[in-house]
Amino acid sequence: MTTELDIVQDWRVFATDHTLVRVTLTADTAVVIWSDGRETPLHRYFLRDNCTCSQCYLPLTREQLFEITDAAADLTFAEAAIDAAGDLVVRWSDGHVSRYAPGWLRSHAPDDASRAERRAARPRPFIWGSEYADALKSFDYADIMADDSTLWAWLSALRSAGMTLVKNVPVEHEALLAPIARISHLRETNFGRVFDVKSKPRADSAAYTSVNLPAHTDLPTRELQPGLQFLHCLINDAVGGESVFVDGFAIGEAMRAHHPAEFATITTTQMAFWNRDDRTDYRWTAPLIALNSDGDLEEVRFANFLRGPIDAPAGQMDAIYAALRLFQAMCRDPKYFIERRLAPGDMWAFDNRRVLHARREFDPQTGERHLQGAYVDRDEINSRWRVLSRELGEPC
Amino acid sequence: MTTELDIVQDWRVFATDHTLVRVTLTADTAVVIWSDGRETPLHRYFLRDNCTCSQCYLPLTREQLFEITDAAADLTFAEAAIDAAGDLVVRWSDGHVSRYAPGWLRSHAPDDASRAERRAARPRPFIWGSEYADALKSFDYADIMADDSTLWAWLSALRSAGMTLVKNVPVEHEALLAPIARISHLRETNFGRVFDVKSKPRADSAAYTSVNLPAHTDLPTRELQPGLQFLHCLINDAVGGESVFVDGFAIGEAMRAHHPAEFATITTTQMAFWNRDDRTDYRWTAPLIALNSDGDLEEVRFANFLRGPIDAPAGQMDAIYAALRLFQAMCRDPKYFIERRLAPGDMWAFDNRRVLHARREFDPQTGERHLQGAYVDRDEINSRWRVLSRELGEPC
Repeated sequence: MTTELDIVQDWRVFATDHTLVRVTLTADTAVVIWSDGRETPLHRYFLRDNCTCSQCYLPLTREQLFEITDAAADLTFAEAAIDAAGDLVVRWSDGHVSRYAPGWLRSHAPDDASRAERRAARPRPFIWGSEYADALKSFDYADIMADDSTLWAWLSALRSAGMTLVKNVPVEHEALLAPIARISHLRETNFGRVFDVKSKPRADSAAYTSVNLPAHTDLPTRELQPGLQFLHCLINDAVGGESVFVDGFAIGEAMRAHHPAEFATITTTQMAFWNRDDRTDYRWTAPLIALNSDGDLEEVRFANFLRGPIDAPAGQMDAIYAALRLFQAMCRDPKYFIERRLAPGDMWAFDNRRVLHARREFDPQTGERHLQGAYVDRDEINSRWRVLSRELGEPC
Repeated sequence: MTTELDIVQDWRVFATDHTLVRVTLTADTAVVIWSDGRETPLHRYFLRDNCTCSQCYLPLTREQLFEITDAAADLTFAEAAIDAAGDLVVRWSDGHVSRYAPGWLRSHAPDDASRAERRAARPRPFIWGSEYADALKSFDYADIMADDSTLWAWLSALRSAGMTLVKNVPVEHEALLAPIARISHLRETNFGRVFDVKSKPRADSAAYTSVNLPAHTDLPTRELQPGLQFLHCLINDAVGGESVFVDGFAIGEAMRAHHPAEFATITTTQMAFWNRDDRTDYRWTAPLIALNSDGDLEEVRFANFLRGPIDAPAGQMDAIYAALRLFQAMCRDPKYFIERRLAPGDMWAFDNRRVLHARREFDPQTGERHLQGAYVDRDEINSRWRVLSRELGEPC
């Protein structure tokens, strides 16, 4: 059987130390046996779908041309073998030939053991509390601007801890845009590409007053809350106005461990968030803590000052308010928060869908306070981190 | 009991024809009886949380200052009555007094009948197939630019049918930005604020080649796919290149009705989407059809050329591929699609998270083809529509 196929390579490298030993066929499935004894059943459509020969894939874009709906209902294996190069080669009942490298097959194997291994290998977030005030990762502006490995380390810390400090950002209007441009484009909102946080006479949000702002995520009124927030301090002369940060994932995991009923309620109850403005009317409804399909924490969404009335059956109100009150109380518990006073040139960078931030009340009569902020979504951070990882030879 | 409370008004008007007749109290709950006999049990924390007096709400921003976690665990009703104005007035065990208008109470009542009424009153999407080619709503550029009620009608059609045509857009570079600016800011992506769809020598996506592009949504590789897509035709001289549109919600509802097993599979199986580019590496995983918490269709996410391998247990592959093959086959069924040839000055505006679009192969040797596109998220469309509805006296 010929193995001279023109394979379209992905940018990603899929490697394995294990080799393919044998393949056996049923009508629907090719079962490969690995050098470590693992058995992986490969469904005929799964294999056909993942043929990356240059007929099935467009070499220019590395994108699939073949559509699996075009495979015959009775498509089956004519022949399958492990070839001299160690690849699985399949000849199909319609004559098409496909080849699969062991690295790719092991990395995508649908047997339970392989899937459990992949799940176990996924990076876990670094969860923190007040002790992180001393361990908080900080980065220097000049290094981020000049050096890709510092940029990679900064993004790695943002992905893991969701919270970093950048020092020595020039104290200039929109200076935060330069380090952001090292990552990607911005997430624009109705507050602009860059927003100015200072007390305004005609405030359209509590953020633009001087009152105490309890722990919150920004823009929970949007279907996708902005992912990463960058807050750059230009002036901080007023009395008060300290910044407080809470790892919402720490609260989520503590609720899961110690308050399972409240955790179940808070992760499933739809909470409404509305803004109240004359020019915009944003509304979204979602659980305060959202889990992904594996049950892992995905995001926290909360700003008390933007909540709408809870729309839930009367009989559930007692449980919902118990969970909400507990969450709010935990956000104020000193063991979960770090409090810092920003100095001009400091820039917080944090995951707005995980880390809640608060601001102590300040007295605008005692001095000026001016921060500039901007957002970048998680997608952009992750994409940039993966491309840097490729370039630096790190796994991604 | 005094009812002289300074109430902070929302921008929204909540009205009802029904009046409050009586209120009875338990330790936890105030039960109001309405003029139509309905009984609404109101939990003490639900009522306390929704006190909008000027102590609990910041009048300047209409945002809540009070936090329900600050209510005592034993907070209860001292007294409750329907006052002369017809409002429910509550005096709390700590002396605080709250007032609730019947319009607000009826609009947020947590009894089952009221919740079912609200759910039934929600607008349903207008689902379409090939017959929509004749009924497709089209709007004139000049009217959208000049007239708020046309703008409102255009956005209403986009919210309902997810698909409209705008005629007579000036055939000029970036002319699509003017009608978009009537709505909001753009959703920027790595392809820029405005993207050019034409055949490129060094294509980083199948969109920038001349091949047949099967029905797809744009950027399924992002956590939030761009909401609304605007595609403005500048030149269309090449042979081929017709535009095809499919209402993904029509396919979703047909699968739900006629193929319930495949519908259950397609709405719960995580599908991977990856791009393959040297400068970006976007990845996201989500069901091909996503439902909201009420089981209604929320979005369709699909581009065959951006799919990654399916990561699912081996035993589920047969069912998953049956559902995927069915979905793809339905996208090609003429009863579900409309096909049109764009003329210069035409601009499609469609919901990219609902309406799949396809492009027939074209021959770049026979002439030029140049479209410009841009995205705006659903949040922005909805916010703008609600503010226009307020101004035009329409319900929202």
